[in-house]
Amino acid sequence: MRHPIAVLILCLLTSVAAGSASAADREKLLSEPGVYGTFAVFQMDQEWWKLDKAARMAALTEVKAALKKHGERLAIDAYLLRGLYERGDFFLRVHSTELTQTQDFLLELMGTTAGRYMKNTVTLNGITKKLNYVPAFSDEVKAALKTPLDPGLKPYAIVIPIRKDAAWWLTDQEGRTARMKEHTEASIPYLKTVKRKLYHASGLDDVDFLTYFETAKLDDFNNLVIALERVQENRHNAQFGRPTILGTIRPIEDILEVLAR
Amino acid sequence: MRHPIAVLILCLLTSVAAGSASAADREKLLSEPGVYGTFAVFQMDQEWWKLDKAARMAALTEVKAALKKHGERLAIDAYLLRGLYERGDFFLRVHSTELTQTQDFLLELMGTTAGRYMKNTVTLNGITKKLNYVPAFSDEVKAALKTPLDPGLKPYAIVIPIRKDAAWWLTDQEGRTARMKEHTEASIPYLKTVKRKLYHASGLDDVDFLTYFETAKLDDFNNLVIALERVQENRHNAQFGRPTILGTIRPIEDILEVLAR
Amino acid sequence: MRHPIAVLILCLLTSVAAGSASAADREKLLSEPGVYGTFAVFQMDQEWWKLDKAARMAALTEVKAALKKHGERLAIDAYLLRGLYERGDFFLRVHSTELTQTQDFLLELMGTTAGRYMKNTVTLNGITKKLNYVPAFSDEVKAALKTPLDPGLKPYAIVIPIRKDAAWWLTDQEGRTARMKEHTEASIPYLKTVKRKLYHASGLDDVDFLTYFETAKLDDFNNLVIALERVQENRHNAQFGRPTILGTIRPIEDILEVLAR
Amino acid sequence: MRHPIAVLILCLLTSVAAGSASAADREKLLSEPGVYGTFAVFQMDQEWWKLDKAARMAALTEVKAALKKHGERLAIDAYLLRGLYERGDFFLRVHSTELTQTQDFLLELMGTTAGRYMKNTVTLNGITKKLNYVPAFSDEVKAALKTPLDPGLKPYAIVIPIRKDAAWWLTDQEGRTARMKEHTEASIPYLKTVKRKLYHASGLDDVDFLTYFETAKLDDFNNLVIALERVQENRHNAQFGRPTILGTIRPIEDILEVLAR
Amino acid sequence: MRHPIAVLILCLLTSVAAGSASAADREKLLSEPGVYGTFAVFQMDQEWWKLDKAARMAALTEVKAALKKHGERLAIDAYLLRGLYERGDFFLRVHSTELTQTQDFLLELMGTTAGRYMKNTVTLNGITKKLNYVPAFSDEVKAALKTPLDPGLKPYAIVIPIRKDAAWWLTDQEGRTARMKEHTEASIPYLKTVKRKLYHASGLDDVDFLTYFETAKLDDFNNLVIALERVQENRHNAQFGRPTILGTIRPIEDILEVLAR
Repeated sequence: MRHPIAVLILCLLTSVAAGSASAADREKLLSEPGVYGTFAVFQMDQEWWKLDKAARMAALTEVKAALKKHGERLAIDAYLLRGLYERGDFFLRVHSTELTQTQDFLLELMGTTAGRYMKNTVTLNGITKKLNYVPAFSDEVKAALKTPLDPGLKPYAIVIPIRKDAAWWLTDQEGRTARMKEHTEASIPYLKTVKRKLYHASGLDDVDFLTYFETAKLDDFNNLVIALERVQENRHNAQFGRPTILGTIRPIEDILEVLAR
Repeated sequence: MRHPIAVLILCLLTSVAAGSASAADREKLLSEPGVYGTFAVFQMDQEWWKLDKAARMAALTEVKAALKKHGERLAIDAYLLRGLYERGDFFLRVHSTELTQTQDFLLELMGTTAGRYMKNTVTLNGITKKLNYVPAFSDEVKAALKTPLDPGLKPYAIVIPIRKDAAWWLTDQEGRTARMKEHTEASIPYLKTVKRKLYHASGLDDVDFLTYFETAKLDDFNNLVIALERVQENRHNAQFGRPTILGTIRPIEDILEVLAR
Repeated sequence: MRHPIAVLILCLLTSVAAGSASAADREKLLSEPGVYGTFAVFQMDQEWWKLDKAARMAALTEVKAALKKHGERLAIDAYLLRGLYERGDFFLRVHSTELTQTQDFLLELMGTTAGRYMKNTVTLNGITKKLNYVPAFSDEVKAALKTPLDPGLKPYAIVIPIRKDAAWWLTDQEGRTARMKEHTEASIPYLKTVKRKLYHASGLDDVDFLTYFETAKLDDFNNLVIALERVQENRHNAQFGRPTILGTIRPIEDILEVLAR
Repeated sequence: MRHPIAVLILCLLTSVAAGSASAADREKLLSEPGVYGTFAVFQMDQEWWKLDKAARMAALTEVKAALKKHGERLAIDAYLLRGLYERGDFFLRVHSTELTQTQDFLLELMGTTAGRYMKNTVTLNGITKKLNYVPAFSDEVKAALKTPLDPGLKPYAIVIPIRKDAAWWLTDQEGRTARMKEHTEASIPYLKTVKRKLYHASGLDDVDFLTYFETAKLDDFNNLVIALERVQENRHNAQFGRPTILGTIRPIEDILEVLAR
Repeated sequence: MRHPIAVLILCLLTSVAAGSASAADREKLLSEPGVYGTFAVFQMDQEWWKLDKAARMAALTEVKAALKKHGERLAIDAYLLRGLYERGDFFLRVHSTELTQTQDFLLELMGTTAGRYMKNTVTLNGITKKLNYVPAFSDEVKAALKTPLDPGLKPYAIVIPIRKDAAWWLTDQEGRTARMKEHTEASIPYLKTVKRKLYHASGLDDVDFLTYFETAKLDDFNNLVIALERVQENRHNAQFGRPTILGTIRPIEDILEVLAR
């Protein structure tokens, strides 16, 4: 009890994953269709940084507890934005089978002492689905899509929301499949270095899709986006980005440590 | 007098509906044409969360009293946004036969101790009307539109404002009816799981329509919106969403409890 | 001196019109061409509501004095927005023959104790002119335009700024007259229940027109706007609303009473 | 020393022009090409108005000193916005032969005690040039352009930034000259009552031109802008205004007096 | 210890470059492809300016230390915006071979005492690449591109983000090369007075390119931008600027001195 800061540091650094659902459950949440994905961006208000370090660390142990508790049934990932994105210090990606569970977690997070200093600046909601166009692709493209991702850490994550125009939605399935085949082929050279995940958002948010990427090579990612801009389907992007959210994937301990500095 | 917090909790949790108009009056407000609907989004300011719990609970009993008093002639529903929408903690949907009554209620609400901490971030006003296009639809479509909603709680509510372009308004009634028939047919598969309500807003707000939805199945709702994007009428949506407001329907006690945490 | 609040209430409730120009002068300001109209929206900051009631009432007597003083040569009307419009608590419509007079009044208002808590969130400036198109209309339309307004209070006021596109301004006078005849005919059914006033704003603000309406029947007003959306002239509205400002017309005493609550 | 406020008032009211460059230097800065013009809009924060009058007056003497010092080599004009424009209390127009001099002045201004309460809400930068199209106009138009401005005070000033579309810039010099001849002819009737000055801004700001006007007759100015909207060149205005900044030209003493009230 | 301010001033003015990577390393970071460039705009909050001078100077020595430490492996340049751009007081341009290094530096900067008062208002991220179109240009153009920059200080820096439309990206390489040849030829007359650097941003930010310029002659720069507006490629700029960031290049000591004033 004499060295509360030291104790808190110890406590804070005890390793827990941001989300600690069982490996199997987490894997399912991250791979199955019908899962809700929420991207919630937070910015600490100026008052937070003026609290003393001990107070901030104590506050962050509550955050860790909330992450641990809800991480049992949700898949929660944390990303550091501070320095790279002007509207947030970090964001959470939360996967759940029911959006009320995500809300209950965020209510608890925002209800902690530290949560009172967190300004929620952007929230994007979507849902995963089975692949829409791939089943109609040629065997060659299907095979190429199985290219394994290079092993190793992918320190960067990018979220880009997309809204299609009415002409896109009024194109028939065959026409859209042809366009998406071009789109997919353009992305094949980057399958080894850029991991992709797609969320459908029509009606859940102001956009149609949330695209999420992880990579260790931002130069490859930049080339991928340029390649995708060069196919016909790009004519139907009424909104691409706005915001583009670029952050780094770090252990929750590191992110909390930045907030405790 | 010794345990004010306990007493307040008791008081707060005594069950009253957010709106307590007689069941018959409420039913009329929610179903008849010529009723004004106002969606008012509020965000508690940072100071609120720093008040102690007892002060917040005392403040919220005043809110409950205002809801009860005005709920006698208005239909008031409350929704929790916190965690799912970055611009608000909750929103109220208020139905009245005269918009001054809605304003009087909101004035009283915002004039309570808690109201001083509520920032009104979005307000949308509209009016209900008789169905415009349905009378001209085929008997088959009319019959389909009588599909009963599945029973059970619908925990999610979504508000999407829409503005049509000039070309839409300059299309004759017959042409618009044909387009709306396509639109309606696209929505039929979702009548069982998504409840819909329409408000006209031209001149009362910056949009032409406020569309309101309730559902237990957000995946169905997402599919419904995609289906609606795939009909010709979608070409005339100059604005769709912006904002899309997604929240959860919870008893007012639960919402106040979140604010009192 | 013992009951300062009671005295202040008495003082505050002593009836004066928001603008107390002589009836004749006010009538001229409200009906003649070449008069400047300014719509100034104000929102009280959060600090205001935390002042005690007596302090707020004392501050509001200063506001009343400023209104009375400048009301001698200006026509000043006050409207309550709180609860119906998220960007303001009230707005003033000020008519003067010289815009510096309007500015002098607003400087004095904003310089009062209460004025220090008023955030000016929107200001729109325009000028009245002789009717541009009516002289060329048929006798039938001219006669219809003389339909008298129904008597009785009109509790609602709406301000909608409009910007026309370049194609509109490049249409010749005859072509614009034909379009405005359609526009005018569409509005005839609503002349009894909706009062209209037009301000020209090109160069004085970011729009071309400020349209102002008063009505007791918002349903009629909604139908009027829809009717106006259904004529060709609507194709040339590059901006319609943004903002649409909907408030209620209340005696200045009532508005000050809301601010003093 | 006993009546510091009185002394300060005296000091404040001692007449100096906002800019006190020698008449000849000022004339050159205001008429020659190759001069940089900066429009800097400031809004006093809420805290300012809560300082006591003496503190504010003391602070404003520093402002006067900065204006005087830099006015020796810059042409500085001050305008009152408060009451007429929601995003500012006043703006300065600064002319210099080198933009670093303008910055040095603004740094000193913002570094004064009063400057700490000034929020810079809008800044627009441009440069004056020789007339581009006039040399190719007919002698008749050239002669008309020499119409002298009516004498007397012009109390109103308006700043309107303009961005042209790509089609404009891709029109050849002859085509643009023809269009600008129409534009110029439309403005001739207003040469007596509206003074105009043009700044080029491509690359220095988000627009291509800053247009600045002074007039005693806002009704004439409104008619001038409508006349300019009625020529073909208006089709190429991708942005016109946004913001339109309307203020009054007042001696710096009057503006400081408003801030000291 | 008796004259802490004097000591701090001394300390602050000790000359170090904002970035002190070895000259060779810095040269490589500033000239090679595959380097990440981040433009981070900061605005000091109002509280900062109310701290006493000694506290601010002490805080700024920490900033200097962070710049020095990270300047060993990053190329960091500082620019003064205050007075010329309403959304920032200064910006940093940071070059690194890995964006996490840039983030680590900015985390440390923002974690200093002074950093707690820095609001990050704009951040733009890009990457340098080999020239895309130049290899296909004629020898004449290639030779012209070797025109050496005039010697001497370039006190002004401008950052303009650009987004191309879908039609641009769908133009084949030959077509884009032809367009870029026109673009390049238009810029040749300004090679002596305007230094240019290009960053690719697709997917890293909401735009496709970040263009960066340095010049001593803003009039030349204005003419350069106009020349670039006059080529066909300009039709494909869906966004040009918004924001245009114009600042001055000053030694870090000067910038810190402005913040310490």
